[in-house]
Amino acid sequence: MNVPALPPGPVDGLLAGVDIGGTTTRVVLCGPGLGVECAAEVPTPAAHGGAAMTRAAFTALDTLLDGEPRPLAGIGFGAAGVVDRVDGRILVASDSFSGWAGFGVTDAAEAALGVPAFLDNDVNAFLRGEVAHGAAVGERHVLGMTLGTGVGGALWIDGALYDGPHGAAGEIGHVPGFGDLHCSCGGRGHLETLAAGRAITAGYARRTGRVRSAQEIADAAVRGDQDAAAVYERAGAAVARALLITAGVLDVTTAVLGGGVSDAWTLLEPAIRAAVAEEPPVSGRPLRVVPSRLGRDAVAVGAAAHALTELGAAVRTP
Amino acid sequence: MNVPALPPGPVDGLLAGVDIGGTTTRVVLCGPGLGVECAAEVPTPAAHGGAAMTRAAFTALDTLLDGEPRPLAGIGFGAAGVVDRVDGRILVASDSFSGWAGFGVTDAAEAALGVPAFLDNDVNAFLRGEVAHGAAVGERHVLGMTLGTGVGGALWIDGALYDGPHGAAGEIGHVPGFGDLHCSCGGRGHLETLAAGRAITAGYARRTGRVRSAQEIADAAVRGDQDAAAVYERAGAAVARALLITAGVLDVTTAVLGGGVSDAWTLLEPAIRAAVAEEPPVSGRPLRVVPSRLGRDAVAVGAAAHALTELGAAVRTP
Repeated sequence: MNVPALPPGPVDGLLAGVDIGGTTTRVVLCGPGLGVECAAEVPTPAAHGGAAMTRAAFTALDTLLDGEPRPLAGIGFGAAGVVDRVDGRILVASDSFSGWAGFGVTDAAEAALGVPAFLDNDVNAFLRGEVAHGAAVGERHVLGMTLGTGVGGALWIDGALYDGPHGAAGEIGHVPGFGDLHCSCGGRGHLETLAAGRAITAGYARRTGRVRSAQEIADAAVRGDQDAAAVYERAGAAVARALLITAGVLDVTTAVLGGGVSDAWTLLEPAIRAAVAEEPPVSGRPLRVVPSRLGRDAVAVGAAAHALTELGAAVRTP
Repeated sequence: MNVPALPPGPVDGLLAGVDIGGTTTRVVLCGPGLGVECAAEVPTPAAHGGAAMTRAAFTALDTLLDGEPRPLAGIGFGAAGVVDRVDGRILVASDSFSGWAGFGVTDAAEAALGVPAFLDNDVNAFLRGEVAHGAAVGERHVLGMTLGTGVGGALWIDGALYDGPHGAAGEIGHVPGFGDLHCSCGGRGHLETLAAGRAITAGYARRTGRVRSAQEIADAAVRGDQDAAAVYERAGAAVARALLITAGVLDVTTAVLGGGVSDAWTLLEPAIRAAVAEEPPVSGRPLRVVPSRLGRDAVAVGAAAHALTELGAAVRTP
């Protein structure tokens, strides 16, 4: 089933990818093969509105392009929240962003840079990146899951991103059946209450009375803290169950995990492997769960891959 | 999002649909609009091999066609188990069938009847029927679930059946997260252990020590037997959770329930409605769960719809 996921690229020049996160904006420059040639990071001016946020990205991009003889062919953005991919606009943003909801990202980029611009949400961009140049290169059916502040999911079905009829497909972080803790979304018993960064913090606090970041708890687990290890083990088991359900329903055999919490892969992995081994899918083909290969570049590379795909498609169907 | 699911039909003549069940084979004759004009049932000679099973169906069909002036345009089959839709062949059959696995159903039908024949599994055929002429007419994104001896699932995505890369998509009956009872498939904690007919029987036996059929337990519940009602309520809650998970992942807002256990719809419905009301999907659009409208005709009508779709597509792309 493995075929190249990228269009046979008549796209000339460099592709820029931008990951606009809550605190940091990361910009990469890729060649047409999507290898990262250089990268830069700037703080995201999240309190200052969409124009300031995109300008910060363009300034970082300028430093990367300085002295570069090859032209820029296009740029892609990955952003948290709900986006309108067709209009290149942010629809719903987290409360930590001011003046971001409603902002026309691709309009601003095309005006400032003079090249075609594309926008997707960060979880979709993550999965695009891993399929284009990461842990699932060339595969046609892949689940993506990001464990960060929240839990995000994305679906790559038959060689393309699958959004669903209302743009909400892949949202495995907010379906019922994962205990009974209250979720940030107002629901109960969602995967996010067990596997997001704040769930790690809350789970550890319930056990020990101590409030620590997910990273600190991971470090403690590595040093032998049993409570810390147990919180990650519980997260891993819940992630595995969510992946097995999604993979079972969609008959998919590869899942890629990303996001900050998944940096503690060695803490999550044993519970994931155990759960997957216990549950052979109906298709008889075991689920392969792998960590992100692109790490902190994944969203930005995926945004660049999005641009490459759209530009390639435009060239092929003039 | 509602558009006609059927091709604008240049298909002339009648369509036959055959539902080959473990004990009964049901045959329907439909006009090109897929309305059932007449139907017949014969016992399935499941112990006597594929040739005998299809012959029984052809005999029933002959009685329906007797004196009928209009020609037969094509025939479709829905059969339990794993089927190869392209070759029209049974791949894996239940132990209650002899000489069925490996049997070339469409070859036998085309040789006997001289018209194009098509095969799908019964759960897919059920969903085809409900979308073509039942509870979800014209919808483009629908989940189908059958509660019978086992629990089956099927996906109608963007106006077509979605099978997945290994033909196992939609298998919501066998993913983990539904308690810890042992499942017929060898796994544990699957929906089937709570919502299939034998799960109703086993659940009631655990509570009361009495072994009754799912139908008998439904009748008892209607007469006020609290244990019987509780077993159906538990099944309804589990079905709702499975539907909410699947709908959430796929961003689908309509689900159709069929199969013998779902005949007790009034016993399942309150728990389903309660669970759905408690869990607004991420898309913000509530999940609509409806019972089969075609009832015992659903699989046969879906098989006829399959034939109509394939014949229509063949006419459109000669």
